[in-house]
This record gives sequence, structure tokens and C-alpha cells, in this order.
Amino acid sequence: MHSQPSVLDAIRVRRSVRRVLPDPVSPETVEEVLDAARWAPSGLNNQPWRFLIVRSPEKREALARCTRYGELLRSAPAAVAVFLSRSASYSRDKDLQGVGAALQNLLLAAHACGLGACWLGEILNRRKEAEAALGVPSDLELMAVVTLGWPADEGPHGDAERRPLADLVVGEV
Amino acid sequence: MHSQPSVLDAIRVRRSVRRVLPDPVSPETVEEVLDAARWAPSGLNNQPWRFLIVRSPEKREALARCTRYGELLRSAPAAVAVFLSRSASYSRDKDLQGVGAALQNLLLAAHACGLGACWLGEILNRRKEAEAALGVPSDLELMAVVTLGWPADEGPHGDAERRPLADLVVGEV
Repeated sequence: MHSQPSVLDAIRVRRSVRRVLPDPVSPETVEEVLDAARWAPSGLNNQPWRFLIVRSPEKREALARCTRYGELLRSAPAAVAVFLSRSASYSRDKDLQGVGAALQNLLLAAHACGLGACWLGEILNRRKEAEAALGVPSDLELMAVVTLGWPADEGPHGDAERRPLADLVVGEV
Repeated sequence: MHSQPSVLDAIRVRRSVRRVLPDPVSPETVEEVLDAARWAPSGLNNQPWRFLIVRSPEKREALARCTRYGELLRSAPAAVAVFLSRSASYSRDKDLQGVGAALQNLLLAAHACGLGACWLGEILNRRKEAEAALGVPSDLELMAVVTLGWPADEGPHGDAERRPLADLVVGEV
């Protein structure tokens, strides 16, 4: 069992991992990560998130053609497509935030398991093509794809910077 | 220092806390929680979230009048209003997910600090009134209010249930 980081450390240390090894990720590990995702909060507890596990080279290639980050989808042994269930949704604004909360749980759980994950949002620019490639029913609207793999060495992270808190707190009343 | 839970435990154990003590929450603790929020991922790393700390009884009362969960805003010693910065936003769908990821970090960090937090989304039904009560500039669109306080004993949690993973994983391809 990978030794688990504390919550606050994981939140600060986790980063998008864009270089991964070809080694497989076990079904149990993917399940652990998805199980964390489902504990996110949602309005009216409607749990509008749905997940499709993408492992086959054919489907990863089909998805890869829908994004400029295709190489990552080709190299990562697994990915998870995250959807909003239209029939479960009751408020788009709240449900998209809920899906984001589930995604953050997924990313933190992947980090806790020692996996490298990368949230691909750019693929939404070709959302309908990606949905068609995956063959999902029309109830499911693609929200993001997350690649999963065991981290390879990589250089400095491109998304490591964050604005200081003072720029983000607009005041106190 | 409160002993910190592991990531996976925190994700599963955290719940909305709707009964809190009147004891104050220090500025340092609020800062710790907001600092975690800012480490969420966002598309193009645009970090579109902004935070307003709400402590004064007058402003909490003004917010309380905008939601059916007003009693919680009256009793919690502090709250954080979370906004989307319209000028920082580049894709509403992705930015709302990013704000949701920041909110989940905020909730997990509150849990790690021993605080009880509750994400109030219902207040969006009267969003413009709430924004006016807070007096924020028009660049800021209210996304949620999170109450913060030290947990009081409470009964079973109303939102503890989650659907089994098998209901949420639509397949593997």
C-alpha cells in the first residue's frame, strides 16, 4: 500500500502528470479512484456524475484524435471519461460545480495512490466527436477526460504556478 | 495542530456540517482553508475563483435572508462567498467545473482543520439579491456560499448516502 499523504499536502503537491509509463493500472486501482470521486457533494445530493473507463488502444486513439493532447491519451494505459447525466441534472450551474468537485476527488485519490493524472478539458472543443467516438447514450454529456498512469520522470510542471491568495480574496465583510 | 486525516479517508468521511458552535474561527484558519482552494486545477490555469470572507453579523443576516438555510448563516461564525470572475473566465463549462474543484479543496481543507463546513448552493436561486447584499463588483458572479464553524454534535447526516459505484460507471471500452 502506497503511504498516504495528508489532505493538505496532497492538495498542494498534486499536479497534472503528462508523462506516464506504459505499465498497466489495475482495475482495483481505477475503482479506488472512482470510488473517491463519487463522495463529492452535489446539490440535492443528485450525484449527476457518470464515468466511462477507457482502456482499449482503439478507443484511446479515437479520443486522441479529438484533442491536441492526443499523445497523452495514446501513452496513458487508462483514462476515465467523466459525464454529466442530463436526466440526473437539475441545475446546470450547480451540477457543473458538482462534477468539478468529483473530478478534484478523483485527481486527489489518484495522487494518493501514486498515480499520475491529467484533467483534459480542451477535448470539449470537439465534444460531440468525442462522445460519438465513445458511443455513449445521449443522456451523457462529456465534461472531461482524465488520463491515468504511473508517473514517468518529467521536468518542471507547466501548471505549477498559482496566484497568491491576496489576489484572490476580494475582501472581508 | 489538529492531526491530519489521509486524503482518501477525508474524501469519504467529510460531510456537510449544519450545526456549529458560536466559537470564532481564527483568520489563520480561514486563510489555511482558502489557501487550499487556490491549488485547484483550472483550464489554461486561469484560476477564475475569487473569495469574500463574511464574518459580520449584519452581512451574514443579509445573506441569510436570501436562502432557506438562513439559520446556518446566522449561527456559523464565518462564511466564504465563492465567485467566478467574469473577466478571468474563458469557458463557462470548464470554469464552473474549476470552481467546483476549488470548492472541494476548500471543504476537504476545512475537514482537515477540524472545521465543519456546508456548501450552500440553494442561495443561487436569489443570486442577484445575495450579490447586492454583499456589495460585490459586477465582475463577480456568486457560485456558492460555504459556512465555517466548529462542529456541534449532530444527528445522522442527511446527505451521507451515495449511490454505489456500479450505478455510476456506465461501462469500459
